[in-house]
Amino acid sequence: MTSSPRHDGRAPDQLREVRITRNWLDHAEGSVLVEFGRTRVLCAASFTEGVPRWLKGQGTGWVTAEYEMLPRSTNTRSDREARKGKVGGRTHEISRLIGRSLRAVIDTKALGENTIVLDCDVLQADGGTRTASITGAYVALVDAIEDARARGLIAAGAKPLTGSIAAVSVGIVGGTPVLDLDYPEDSTAETDMNVVMTGEGGFVEVQGTAEGAPFDRAELDALLALAAKGIDDLTAAQQAALATAPRERVR
Amino acid sequence: MTSSPRHDGRAPDQLREVRITRNWLDHAEGSVLVEFGRTRVLCAASFTEGVPRWLKGQGTGWVTAEYEMLPRSTNTRSDREARKGKVGGRTHEISRLIGRSLRAVIDTKALGENTIVLDCDVLQADGGTRTASITGAYVALVDAIEDARARGLIAAGAKPLTGSIAAVSVGIVGGTPVLDLDYPEDSTAETDMNVVMTGEGGFVEVQGTAEGAPFDRAELDALLALAAKGIDDLTAAQQAALATAPRERVR
Amino acid sequence: MTSSPRHDGRAPDQLREVRITRNWLDHAEGSVLVEFGRTRVLCAASFTEGVPRWLKGQGTGWVTAEYEMLPRSTNTRSDREARKGKVGGRTHEISRLIGRSLRAVIDTKALGENTIVLDCDVLQADGGTRTASITGAYVALVDAIEDARARGLIAAGAKPLTGSIAAVSVGIVGGTPVLDLDYPEDSTAETDMNVVMTGEGGFVEVQGTAEGAPFDRAELDALLALAAKGIDDLTAAQQAALATAPRERVR
Amino acid sequence: MTSSPRHDGRAPDQLREVRITRNWLDHAEGSVLVEFGRTRVLCAASFTEGVPRWLKGQGTGWVTAEYEMLPRSTNTRSDREARKGKVGGRTHEISRLIGRSLRAVIDTKALGENTIVLDCDVLQADGGTRTASITGAYVALVDAIEDARARGLIAAGAKPLTGSIAAVSVGIVGGTPVLDLDYPEDSTAETDMNVVMTGEGGFVEVQGTAEGAPFDRAELDALLALAAKGIDDLTAAQQAALATAPRERVR
Amino acid sequence: MTSSPRHDGRAPDQLREVRITRNWLDHAEGSVLVEFGRTRVLCAASFTEGVPRWLKGQGTGWVTAEYEMLPRSTNTRSDREARKGKVGGRTHEISRLIGRSLRAVIDTKALGENTIVLDCDVLQADGGTRTASITGAYVALVDAIEDARARGLIAAGAKPLTGSIAAVSVGIVGGTPVLDLDYPEDSTAETDMNVVMTGEGGFVEVQGTAEGAPFDRAELDALLALAAKGIDDLTAAQQAALATAPRERVR
Amino acid sequence: MTSSPRHDGRAPDQLREVRITRNWLDHAEGSVLVEFGRTRVLCAASFTEGVPRWLKGQGTGWVTAEYEMLPRSTNTRSDREARKGKVGGRTHEISRLIGRSLRAVIDTKALGENTIVLDCDVLQADGGTRTASITGAYVALVDAIEDARARGLIAAGAKPLTGSIAAVSVGIVGGTPVLDLDYPEDSTAETDMNVVMTGEGGFVEVQGTAEGAPFDRAELDALLALAAKGIDDLTAAQQAALATAPRERVR
Repeated sequence: MTSSPRHDGRAPDQLREVRITRNWLDHAEGSVLVEFGRTRVLCAASFTEGVPRWLKGQGTGWVTAEYEMLPRSTNTRSDREARKGKVGGRTHEISRLIGRSLRAVIDTKALGENTIVLDCDVLQADGGTRTASITGAYVALVDAIEDARARGLIAAGAKPLTGSIAAVSVGIVGGTPVLDLDYPEDSTAETDMNVVMTGEGGFVEVQGTAEGAPFDRAELDALLALAAKGIDDLTAAQQAALATAPRERVR
Repeated sequence: MTSSPRHDGRAPDQLREVRITRNWLDHAEGSVLVEFGRTRVLCAASFTEGVPRWLKGQGTGWVTAEYEMLPRSTNTRSDREARKGKVGGRTHEISRLIGRSLRAVIDTKALGENTIVLDCDVLQADGGTRTASITGAYVALVDAIEDARARGLIAAGAKPLTGSIAAVSVGIVGGTPVLDLDYPEDSTAETDMNVVMTGEGGFVEVQGTAEGAPFDRAELDALLALAAKGIDDLTAAQQAALATAPRERVR
Repeated sequence: MTSSPRHDGRAPDQLREVRITRNWLDHAEGSVLVEFGRTRVLCAASFTEGVPRWLKGQGTGWVTAEYEMLPRSTNTRSDREARKGKVGGRTHEISRLIGRSLRAVIDTKALGENTIVLDCDVLQADGGTRTASITGAYVALVDAIEDARARGLIAAGAKPLTGSIAAVSVGIVGGTPVLDLDYPEDSTAETDMNVVMTGEGGFVEVQGTAEGAPFDRAELDALLALAAKGIDDLTAAQQAALATAPRERVR
Repeated sequence: MTSSPRHDGRAPDQLREVRITRNWLDHAEGSVLVEFGRTRVLCAASFTEGVPRWLKGQGTGWVTAEYEMLPRSTNTRSDREARKGKVGGRTHEISRLIGRSLRAVIDTKALGENTIVLDCDVLQADGGTRTASITGAYVALVDAIEDARARGLIAAGAKPLTGSIAAVSVGIVGGTPVLDLDYPEDSTAETDMNVVMTGEGGFVEVQGTAEGAPFDRAELDALLALAAKGIDDLTAAQQAALATAPRERVR
Repeated sequence: MTSSPRHDGRAPDQLREVRITRNWLDHAEGSVLVEFGRTRVLCAASFTEGVPRWLKGQGTGWVTAEYEMLPRSTNTRSDREARKGKVGGRTHEISRLIGRSLRAVIDTKALGENTIVLDCDVLQADGGTRTASITGAYVALVDAIEDARARGLIAAGAKPLTGSIAAVSVGIVGGTPVLDLDYPEDSTAETDMNVVMTGEGGFVEVQGTAEGAPFDRAELDALLALAAKGIDDLTAAQQAALATAPRERVR
Repeated sequence: MTSSPRHDGRAPDQLREVRITRNWLDHAEGSVLVEFGRTRVLCAASFTEGVPRWLKGQGTGWVTAEYEMLPRSTNTRSDREARKGKVGGRTHEISRLIGRSLRAVIDTKALGENTIVLDCDVLQADGGTRTASITGAYVALVDAIEDARARGLIAAGAKPLTGSIAAVSVGIVGGTPVLDLDYPEDSTAETDMNVVMTGEGGFVEVQGTAEGAPFDRAELDALLALAAKGIDDLTAAQQAALATAPRERVR
């Protein structure tokens, strides 16, 4: 493709620069600062023994997530939801999406009666905060599981992870299907879709929304193909990050 | 197909019995009791002149929705969210979905500076409460717009509606793709997808979730085909309801 | 009385048309759609084994109620209390009144350590929503108790109900004492009184309020006589409903 | 009656010792420490110019009330409702009762566009906190109106008060109708009734509840007679307090 | 000092009139109405057996405090925090300060597994409400401990109190360091400091804030000297109050 | 001092390593990642034109702050206050402290009718989060003011800042007065004091608390001297950071 229709010069099927920094925090059992271009999310995995009351005695673990944006992660400051005394619908919705996505690659039996909470706090938002959160949270989850295994809290041979998981946005911007929308693209997209897939290419979540005119089946197919390509690239980035020795945590 | 794999004997591509009762309420500008089998949702459309502050002076209207389940709509009683002082994530998420879906067929300029709120209260739940809500709310929306037009609040020639909208669930149950899942099916589905489409077949929302194993592209295609068939049937039911004179409201 | 002073032509001591539809819901142990004219309340009785913590081990049961109005039950839409994060004073007050009234005919010892919650959701409001709620909830309560007895959760010979209960409003409108006020009457009444009585004519609650000028003893006596007449008629309607076989619930 | 059936030796128709101390506070435009025996309520009347938004421009004023119990007003400490983030049903119900009762003797036109808030804080509770609140709040209201008149905020000849108001409880205790129940009586009463009346004997509120068996018409009549006697005595106490020069406020 | 620079004629190192009335309430195990001039705080100590869950089984007790201002304790009425559904920062901060201060003289082992809650409700505010609260709460705490000892809930020889505690404000007003600021002084002070000390002169809390220009070390030293003098006087007032037989509580 | 009594080898009067990274965010008008050893706080300054309603028309600006800890900033995960629907006392208290401290060096007249909000989010906590917040927020505040000046929102010659501000903790640990306590020191300190001072050495806040035994005057003097030394070092670090060209923001 000789000239890009995208404002930042990317090819339609090109991700932004992806950076995954492991062990960004000292206290958390797993933590990742994940960056999709200017989008920057801190993913902290907290491992605790035991499960919520409604799961007790069943021999299975639990993985959940909470997503939140810092007030000045956006272009203009947003009020803190805590100060207003209630959490907005979008925040709840994304928290639930992240949790569901991670549980898709967890064998809760193999996890034992343990709980892992993934806190995804958006430090800077430039589109794709939920997809960056899922992609980064997976790496933090791996580290938290290995930390627990090293401490004997998970059996040596147990395999709580059944695969890897990543997420990416795709959309139709100015008539062109593109991969990994940043904020300027996202806010003008005619159609916006978030896709969560395993590293092996299985679909876990497909959430597409027509922001303007409805989209047709051919457009849907084009978007799904772009998403599959993006997930491949993100899976490679996750594996590369996990293959390198991380910063030593100070405990 | 000679024998059905479904517990209630339906064909895989068959909807439950759909009933749409218009003007179920006297006060509301539009109201529908919609039933998908045993699922029963009361959709009330409230038309008010004026728009929220952030929209004032732009000459455009607003359509939004609120979804809620009555405590005993389900098999065992759930606590009222109002009493607990906070609304759950699922409730928020569905409210937002219904609002977005209806706005996809609204020309807010043609609506003028008017607001329509769709209240979708689930009186009885047996799977598909969000899809029944969208399907019924569209009919209540049509009635509210015509009521406003009759009162001179919308210009005689204005066309605030750009099409019709309906929603249906599809899923993979026991390995078979099926249409319009009831609660027993929904709770055992391997994959669950809600699809919102216009009467003309354009996609407005596609929300698919793997509850168990990830699903592959062929399964996704089968589900999308079933959904398109179901939307056709629901669109016909909406049109049939709108073609009949409704009960006279007592004002 | 040759000519009625009431806007709808009723005699001063005449109820609106009363309809009591049992088993309106499939899931609830007892449920009633009760209508006092255009006022329409869905009363669902939920039976659960066990009692709240503060009652445990005393061999007694518990009956309580929650009342709420749907947003578009009224002439103009009201915001949902759940969305505002707090329940208003009127809602609390009526919930407490319904619960107290029902407990007046319950022998909690005979109920055993079981809880029945009555949810009274006003689908359409035209005056008298609290009195319709109590009158309908009693019938749902009877059905829930018999359902529990049929399932062996209440002893065959136990008599948890010591009588029947109904409620009606009376008031002084345009100088005339009248029975069962609808909304236009209620909003112009000089005095408004809600009376809860047993089927045998005992008083359980008397709540009278002067909306304008204070009322004197003679007026109070006239209102109490009207109420007694209305309760007799409502008791007959309850008994008629309970004497007929209800719709079969689909479970 | 030669011997009293009451635990404190009072005659059935005898009030507890009533004390009304005006200007207990320096800041409030009117304030009263009212005592019905050991029940002790601080009633503060706050006068402010202007009215709530929904009343603006109509030339009428507003009177409202808020009731609350201090945590250790009772025999065992209750949690503060503010700390729990929600106000209970009983608190709301009594606040509304006090406000309604006072408005029954207010001519809001004569008050002009001014607001008076009555804060009734129960410092010590021994039964009858709502009736003491109404009785004391009336005196604080008189003082606040006269203070406003002295400052020229109410016209010299205006008569915002159309009468006096007081409240008392009556009940059936051990089979005997009695006046002004203290806590031991209240907690064992078969029937409990709060009556709000003007000084001239008109009824403003009648709220009777059967705590045990329903009560009959004869019992109701006996209670209403006792209440009328009690209101006479309280009206005399209010007038006596208002006839004496109060403590000078330090401003 | 021949002429005072203070608006009420006090010497710079002179407290307002301090009054400590014990057993102002009948129900509370200890209660004090404390007055620093026109500032009037009701301090109620509630003793309960047992401790919060996180302390159970450690053989230690717990002392905590809650501070709140009545709506009309101030010159203009403030809204109730309970009605707004959230407690403000200042209220939390002072509650925590009072609790911490009292715990500084408590031997929680000697208290046994018992809890004492100190409720400090400001009935009238004229500056120094937190220092009056601490000073009064100490006396109520002594009474609650002795009441528990008399009932055998604390061992005869146990010494839960390791000393006495009092608090006072100091500040720089019009360039002059002064003791125990009332509201007019407090609102114009350049520097304001609250000091909590034991009766023996040890510091427990020092909280100084420059309201206008920063203060220097010499000013800080002057303020600390004034505070020490004020604490001596308050300690004497506490001891005098405790040396006198209090009003008999009616239980 | 030849051998340190501190667990990390610091001299008693030695700060942890201090790092101040400007423009860590692209959107915020000023932003700083401040680190006191392992304590890491993100301070974002948001500049908006206009002031809260209660300040309008007075020609003065407003500076305020909000402090919050991310759930996994601590050794074990804490629940989000937003999810619980209320913000804790400590969070409020520190938010207020930061705001007050910054306002001590602001000339609100020179700021014009503009508002600056400082969001201090603790990413990792190891003691001293409030002192790091104040120290970092000052630098972000300088940047936000210069950004506004560059955009013409503050007059070229206006001097909204009257000085610099920094904060440090001091305490007595194992009998020794030390500077800048980390978490292990803080949790075992006998006395803990936070001191906020201007760069020129004036006191703005002094908040000392005896955690165990009360402290005497000599100890207080030693702590104040250590604090003055620490503030000098922090002021130098602030000036060094401000003297260097920061990372260019991508807007």
